[in-house]
Amino acid sequence: MTSHHSIHPLDEALALASETTGQYTGRTTPGYWNMVGPFGGITAATLLQAVMQHPARLGEPLSLTVNYAGALGEGPFTLQATPVRTNRSTQHWTLSILQAGADGAPVVTTTATVVTAVRRETWGATDTPMPAVPAPAQCKPVRLAFRSEWLRRYEMRPVTGELPTQWDDGGHTSMTQLWMRDAPARPLDFCALAAMADIFFPRVWLRRARQVPAGTVSITVYFHAGGDLLAQTGTGYLLGQARAQEFRNGFFDQTALLWNEAGIVLATSHQIVYYKE
Amino acid sequence: MTSHHSIHPLDEALALASETTGQYTGRTTPGYWNMVGPFGGITAATLLQAVMQHPARLGEPLSLTVNYAGALGEGPFTLQATPVRTNRSTQHWTLSILQAGADGAPVVTTTATVVTAVRRETWGATDTPMPAVPAPAQCKPVRLAFRSEWLRRYEMRPVTGELPTQWDDGGHTSMTQLWMRDAPARPLDFCALAAMADIFFPRVWLRRARQVPAGTVSITVYFHAGGDLLAQTGTGYLLGQARAQEFRNGFFDQTALLWNEAGIVLATSHQIVYYKE
Repeated sequence: MTSHHSIHPLDEALALASETTGQYTGRTTPGYWNMVGPFGGITAATLLQAVMQHPARLGEPLSLTVNYAGALGEGPFTLQATPVRTNRSTQHWTLSILQAGADGAPVVTTTATVVTAVRRETWGATDTPMPAVPAPAQCKPVRLAFRSEWLRRYEMRPVTGELPTQWDDGGHTSMTQLWMRDAPARPLDFCALAAMADIFFPRVWLRRARQVPAGTVSITVYFHAGGDLLAQTGTGYLLGQARAQEFRNGFFDQTALLWNEAGIVLATSHQIVYYKE
Repeated sequence: MTSHHSIHPLDEALALASETTGQYTGRTTPGYWNMVGPFGGITAATLLQAVMQHPARLGEPLSLTVNYAGALGEGPFTLQATPVRTNRSTQHWTLSILQAGADGAPVVTTTATVVTAVRRETWGATDTPMPAVPAPAQCKPVRLAFRSEWLRRYEMRPVTGELPTQWDDGGHTSMTQLWMRDAPARPLDFCALAAMADIFFPRVWLRRARQVPAGTVSITVYFHAGGDLLAQTGTGYLLGQARAQEFRNGFFDQTALLWNEAGIVLATSHQIVYYKE
């Protein structure tokens, strides 16, 4: 990516074409490539992008669940987004991504559901105030400890819970806190936020201090911010905090929170992750 | 429900008929009726029941997301459960419930996704040990502070965070802990566990100490237990803990954990809930 490039890599990845309402085509981009497929967060963001671009959309994203059913291969894919029920202030969507399989026939790689909603001003409160942490400028950018291209698309400044430097089975916590933003910086929107909810490396690597194969099976993101608040957040950093609750029989869960620099919760997220031992 | 009744009310509610693979018919039952429709947990359990009964099912439930798109009315409904992708050790499902609308045409009331998986023995750990709380016998059964029939289907013994007795806007916490089990007692299975993940009254009632209209929009349950562990848990109590993280613009989230009496995490759950002010 050079400075002459006219389109941000995230916008390049989120580019969808549509000739029939609700039917989209897109393609994976090298910029967000992980080890054997795209970064899961970019797939989540792409699904949400289809909803954002749909002419029948009501309101803004409230909830997103993405199920990673199979590997998405390099190349083109089709995406279907359907508003199955529209109420006065909420709308329910079902989505899927398909890609040609080995025999050329379409195969479901990803399923998702989205709820969009019209937000109103109400009483509000937080039960998860932002933890007291050093400011982004006081935290050093992460060393790239494993080689996946998508890691270069984020500026990450860990506060605590960095990737272990010794893979000695000596872990004792699953908690990571880090400042993050798109690289290069890009004004925050719902798609970018959805992707960042999946930025954390597998909790088992930290808790176990062993780098075993792991991959998200299902992720859910709840959006607590409206578009105005995201616009106010702009290109500022987000503080992300993630930890596991339970590791058992090849699966662990992760619960995560994302605040902006002003200390406002923008999203909460949960995922269930496969790990191999 | 009398003692002569030969079928447990939960099994009555979960009864589904199927003549075509993946197509089910069921009906709401009075036993789990809430204020304007069935208890959301029983709808979640019913969707999972369709997967449990499907002849093509691989493995056991790992993840369940239910989106409450519209009110389910009293009477019959149809339920569709489709395994859209089957891998070696995981299987991805999409589900929906439909019911005849005012004009007789079918309307989507609920959508869901489920992941089932084959569990293997691996290294495991918990980062959420069960809190130290009094034993179930030391906690008094809840007084029925609001009148919904479904509340009688559970024995609830609150530890902390009971329903306020004064609706004075004086709340300061959103945390509830309670012991719970089916009433009458019934050996635990995946469907019963899914329902119990939704047992907590709306967090806004506690945090705000104001009883405003509220309803779950989307719930996700991650199952950390296999069938063997559920069978071991049997008719014992579960400790449930729920709290909100953020209340804003008419929606709050809830994060919950359920342990058995031996202190093992059986499920973690998250939901996003509408509230009106």
